[in-house]
Amino acid sequence: MRASNLALVLGEVVRTGPVSRARLAARTGLTKSSVSGLVADLITAGLLQESAPAATERGRPATALSLAPGGVAGLGLEVNIDYLAAVVTDLTGAPRYHHVVRRDNRGREVADVVADLIELARAAAGSADAQALPLAGACVAVPGLAVDGTLARTPNLGWDRVDLADAVREGVGLDVELENEANLAALGEMWFGGHQHDGAPLRDFVHVSGEIGIGGGIVIGGEVFRGANGSAGELGHVVVDPAGPLCACGGHGCLERMAGQQEILARAEVSTVEELTRACEAGDRAALDAVTEAGRHLGVALSSVLTLLDPSAIVLGGAFATLAPWLTAPTAASIGHHSGTAPRLLVSGLGSDAAVRGAAGTVVRRVIADPAAHLARQVARAGS
Amino acid sequence: MRASNLALVLGEVVRTGPVSRARLAARTGLTKSSVSGLVADLITAGLLQESAPAATERGRPATALSLAPGGVAGLGLEVNIDYLAAVVTDLTGAPRYHHVVRRDNRGREVADVVADLIELARAAAGSADAQALPLAGACVAVPGLAVDGTLARTPNLGWDRVDLADAVREGVGLDVELENEANLAALGEMWFGGHQHDGAPLRDFVHVSGEIGIGGGIVIGGEVFRGANGSAGELGHVVVDPAGPLCACGGHGCLERMAGQQEILARAEVSTVEELTRACEAGDRAALDAVTEAGRHLGVALSSVLTLLDPSAIVLGGAFATLAPWLTAPTAASIGHHSGTAPRLLVSGLGSDAAVRGAAGTVVRRVIADPAAHLARQVARAGS
Repeated sequence: MRASNLALVLGEVVRTGPVSRARLAARTGLTKSSVSGLVADLITAGLLQESAPAATERGRPATALSLAPGGVAGLGLEVNIDYLAAVVTDLTGAPRYHHVVRRDNRGREVADVVADLIELARAAAGSADAQALPLAGACVAVPGLAVDGTLARTPNLGWDRVDLADAVREGVGLDVELENEANLAALGEMWFGGHQHDGAPLRDFVHVSGEIGIGGGIVIGGEVFRGANGSAGELGHVVVDPAGPLCACGGHGCLERMAGQQEILARAEVSTVEELTRACEAGDRAALDAVTEAGRHLGVALSSVLTLLDPSAIVLGGAFATLAPWLTAPTAASIGHHSGTAPRLLVSGLGSDAAVRGAAGTVVRRVIADPAAHLARQVARAGS
Repeated sequence: MRASNLALVLGEVVRTGPVSRARLAARTGLTKSSVSGLVADLITAGLLQESAPAATERGRPATALSLAPGGVAGLGLEVNIDYLAAVVTDLTGAPRYHHVVRRDNRGREVADVVADLIELARAAAGSADAQALPLAGACVAVPGLAVDGTLARTPNLGWDRVDLADAVREGVGLDVELENEANLAALGEMWFGGHQHDGAPLRDFVHVSGEIGIGGGIVIGGEVFRGANGSAGELGHVVVDPAGPLCACGGHGCLERMAGQQEILARAEVSTVEELTRACEAGDRAALDAVTEAGRHLGVALSSVLTLLDPSAIVLGGAFATLAPWLTAPTAASIGHHSGTAPRLLVSGLGSDAAVRGAAGTVVRRVIADPAAHLARQVARAGS
């Protein structure tokens, strides 16, 4: 009971921002004395803080309670095809450390990549320490299917059953969980992307991450939809050309095979997304045609997504966000042609950072969802 | 509290079949005296019945409680492109009346079709009455989007905003709800189809109803998935040929336009599914080619469904169930080619009856989910 009331009070502060004890009591239906006791515990735990008195509705000043930014932090890590990334996020979700190491990880020894990731994680943890931010745990975004801390399948990286959670746990001494990057990117978008639907954060949408692989994160009612076996949302393998070529997944004519980063770069005759962007800005015909062609295929896949899932919006993320100035129009036109509809097509402001931001946010959100467990861990740590 | 305990006890009998009061107490965590009181109310309401004593685990005979089949019944109705149907289902889900009237409803006056439906509903209600089955309400399966009792959109029937629930309510004097036929067909399949996954009824699957339109019903965790605006699952409008022709929905290359009943019949040069079936049985080349071609397109759409939704099974229903002997192999081959996977592809035993069975089941399941509301209505009726 106390555990769920702690979560109720903390959750209300997260939702509404700075708020008085009296207001919290009115909103949660708890008595004022209960709220005072719960708030005292949350302040002691470092999760809430009292701020300068603000005027109440009746004009009398009351002490406002707000999230204590430094009370707890989350470490987000990402292993991707061509980069590693780390983010430290405080309790309010603000990033306090962010570092990306660009390097193609295909063909490298798994142990070398993992060692690089742990080095990056230690640097991030060091920065958190220097800022007096207590890390509650880590979450690693991976370009594949994560099952119980093991990276079970990574078609684009070629790794086979890597116990990544254990390795990172030993390396940095934190609780570690693994999650698919496309799902985390969708969560990052929901929590930190700033897009709204009917005046509230998006809760039913599909996030498309266009990296070397094309991932899809389906959010339904504010939760990631995973399907019966955990691999739902693989937008990159929607069939966009039934007569198309073989894909790494074993299928034919998949979106990723027709509009993945490598296909676009090859068609535009450039080698990086930065070069492609510059070429598009310069009005280069081959570059613009390559992006238009990708938009046409993306529109076919998104037409099928719309008809099957009926989301309130689609968010273009990853490299697709970078390419949005040239990609959005042909994508929307293709959706119109293939589905006869004009859906809400949004562009992520987080771009390729969405997944690692979502990973760090996942750690912090777990504390917000269950502050009692966090308090219990603090007590255990103090006693040991 | 009492309301949820009534539902708990009744739900347990539905799940486990005949069971003693002692067992019910053990399974629900309620005291034996609570269970006895709740059971007494459910027996008085006609929802449970005592059956002959059966041996308990210890060998002593105990009176078993089971569903009273005649305690309550549901009326399922269906308006479809080329038929109207009615089913009465008792509390156990067994059909007690079933009648289908085949007639092409396209181009007919809406009022005439509604009058036919009400006539059919009255005949069904008369049969329920003659069998002393008290109808708890009616549910109408419609080939379009149902919003608050209004049939909002029916691309294949061409109806525009028809207040069908009101009309049927006045016609038969029952509570009436409207629901999309593809969703009801999926529920009918889950409740009455008999297919299992890991020893339990299917809870995460996609039901494909191949009628004149091609509908999809997505069931996630035992519930129909509706999307943000209520029209998720429209499998018929997944793009299977980006270069394909215009569809009635305004899109291009939709599955329905490439593998709908009319396309198959035209390609096979026959005019009904019955003729097509006979031609396939006779080994007619054109008929077999037409079905194979439909399977190829269906496989493209289902590859995208699998990659996006990751269901535990796909169930071919409606006319696709009738055509399964010739349709399943090319569909599975196409799925293999386009997705590199071999999913569980099942065939509905209910065929075109799934939606109307699901409609009747919906009424009965509402009583099972909330017997207290049913008891309150009985009391109100007795007092009026």
